[in-house]
Amino acid sequence: MALRIAELETPEVLVDRDQLLRNLGRVQRIAAQHDVALRPHVKTHKCIEIARLQLEHGAVGLTASKVDEALVFIEQACGPSFTLAYPIVDPRKLQRAFASAGHQNVELRITVDSEAGIAAAEAAAKSCNKTVSAFVKIDVGLHRCGLVEDDPQVVRLVRLISSSSQLRFAGLLSHAGQAYTAPDIARIAEIAAEESAILQRVRSRLASAGFDVPEVSVGSTPTVLAGNSFEAVTEIRPGNYVFLDATAVRLGLASFEEVALSVVVTIISANSSYFIIDGGSKVLSSDLGAHGTGAGVGYGVALPIDVAGAEAAPLLVARLSEEHGFVERAGEDLAIGTKLRVIPNHACPVANLAERLTITSQGEMIDQWQVAARGKVR
Amino acid sequence: MALRIAELETPEVLVDRDQLLRNLGRVQRIAAQHDVALRPHVKTHKCIEIARLQLEHGAVGLTASKVDEALVFIEQACGPSFTLAYPIVDPRKLQRAFASAGHQNVELRITVDSEAGIAAAEAAAKSCNKTVSAFVKIDVGLHRCGLVEDDPQVVRLVRLISSSSQLRFAGLLSHAGQAYTAPDIARIAEIAAEESAILQRVRSRLASAGFDVPEVSVGSTPTVLAGNSFEAVTEIRPGNYVFLDATAVRLGLASFEEVALSVVVTIISANSSYFIIDGGSKVLSSDLGAHGTGAGVGYGVALPIDVAGAEAAPLLVARLSEEHGFVERAGEDLAIGTKLRVIPNHACPVANLAERLTITSQGEMIDQWQVAARGKVR
Repeated sequence: MALRIAELETPEVLVDRDQLLRNLGRVQRIAAQHDVALRPHVKTHKCIEIARLQLEHGAVGLTASKVDEALVFIEQACGPSFTLAYPIVDPRKLQRAFASAGHQNVELRITVDSEAGIAAAEAAAKSCNKTVSAFVKIDVGLHRCGLVEDDPQVVRLVRLISSSSQLRFAGLLSHAGQAYTAPDIARIAEIAAEESAILQRVRSRLASAGFDVPEVSVGSTPTVLAGNSFEAVTEIRPGNYVFLDATAVRLGLASFEEVALSVVVTIISANSSYFIIDGGSKVLSSDLGAHGTGAGVGYGVALPIDVAGAEAAPLLVARLSEEHGFVERAGEDLAIGTKLRVIPNHACPVANLAERLTITSQGEMIDQWQVAARGKVR
Repeated sequence: MALRIAELETPEVLVDRDQLLRNLGRVQRIAAQHDVALRPHVKTHKCIEIARLQLEHGAVGLTASKVDEALVFIEQACGPSFTLAYPIVDPRKLQRAFASAGHQNVELRITVDSEAGIAAAEAAAKSCNKTVSAFVKIDVGLHRCGLVEDDPQVVRLVRLISSSSQLRFAGLLSHAGQAYTAPDIARIAEIAAEESAILQRVRSRLASAGFDVPEVSVGSTPTVLAGNSFEAVTEIRPGNYVFLDATAVRLGLASFEEVALSVVVTIISANSSYFIIDGGSKVLSSDLGAHGTGAGVGYGVALPIDVAGAEAAPLLVARLSEEHGFVERAGEDLAIGTKLRVIPNHACPVANLAERLTITSQGEMIDQWQVAARGKVR
């Protein structure tokens, strides 16, 4: 007989399969509606089974940040095509990636934002005797990687790529991660529109310089869920949408019921201010939100484990030690041994900390899936 | 030929063996000087090789938080004795622990702070036909787990334990984690003295009620390194001292040179404000410090990789995404491809995120050790 959530040892990272499927469907429909390809980022789940579900739902391929993360999926023949949406500058890593992708007959596209990155890609492609498609990354406001739109280096890099016998210009790629700092959905939609406008201007500038831009790839869960203009965009690369989290709820992108990932924990002690739960930063992570953003209050919310009780007021996970969480009592009187379900601030690092995801349906465990690419950061 | 640090693929978690050994020696000498037993907490390293070094240096046994974390070491016959310094309330977990410890002939001591915990321990011990030593946890100021000193429940729990045919009263156990909020060493030493005073008062109260207190076990790296009074204490359980980190440096407990764990990273991009490195929260964690404490500025510091350059001003890791770190430029002009060594805020979650520790000596890789108990949170 299947175990119910309340019978599991804790802490355990849960994924509600039915909600996961609804979340997959929601974004696949957005892609269809706007006629853009969906190429999900696997960093959120790092799990072969979920990648296969994404491909079954219509994803054209997958996205990863790091080579070793991508290789886990490539070696399992997960999809026809992979984009490394990360500027990798070590030719040894790229060589490993190109060799494996070639062996598995998987298309591998890379991302560059510097001459050093182009040199690394050329050297690696040459040693594997390959021609590789390369995106140029544009900074659309996160101010992390990528070139700003009026940087003359944009045209220079595209020219370098186009003139290389080992490289092919794939197009422009961006990530509007600053959407996580937006106060509401309206502002997120504006950020999506700004991103699209920036990329159109870069495309025009490249056209004037004689370069065609085959693809325009953007991606962040907030801009995909809240955006209403995908003009000029050919592809979206959201990651977090499969699970969602307390950050998505805070941004107004989802309700708690729409979050597919949670952590079941047990109250193991209590003091006058807090219930102490057996999940801390080694399960929930210390993330306040994506890219270090966040409301600055707490590390998630604790809900009763039974779905029917979901209307109960969520309790704040106010503080974390490594293996303990401090849940505000808020006048409640819960016994030691009581189980709670925590919706974390940020689902992506939670999956990365877990040995496995426990898959549930209607409150029962139905499967366990390995987090196969956990810890693959090179 | 051994790889030098600059030749490693990044990010990679490094442990300098020579500094590790000096850190082990430092605390072992403190234990000898104050005539207390040293029982290190393995949560910091989760690594069999380091546990064996601790035992070789004179540790009387080991400490863990979670059962599955302890079992990794127990099943490798790592030491004669283990303390679970965590109130576990699920009898299934305790049963698993008692059975394995019995099989390996390892003494296993547990910690309780509630009647629920005692009931779970009794049930588990009964089912394994064992008598188990149990500590009662006292809250000495962290206000997490444990009973406050004047709670009548202290005497009640000791009476319950003493009258149980399955349990034996081991003594008092505490963790003065609030030491991480201290502004300086002097305040940390005061906190250590307060902890000792509280535990002496509880011991006196128990004596009046007719109970002997065989052991008094305390432990946190700051109070061990800064404390000068271990009166009434029989055992110390520090964890972080093996590595130390930017928090230990901030507290005045160590210099950057005395930190044994660091993460070698590469500058993979740059913008007008930041160098972007290839280590983010999935390598460095988002911890500001232990127990959610911290200076509130940044996620560690970046230093040149060559030891000779250690006098160079450290650069602040100001912000993290999952796979990127934002390092303040501070007027420096470092090329893409430059490698840096990051000293994280908190070493414990960093080891837990790593697949392995790369062991170095004099700038060369000499070994790689698995983080065997990584992710063991149940």
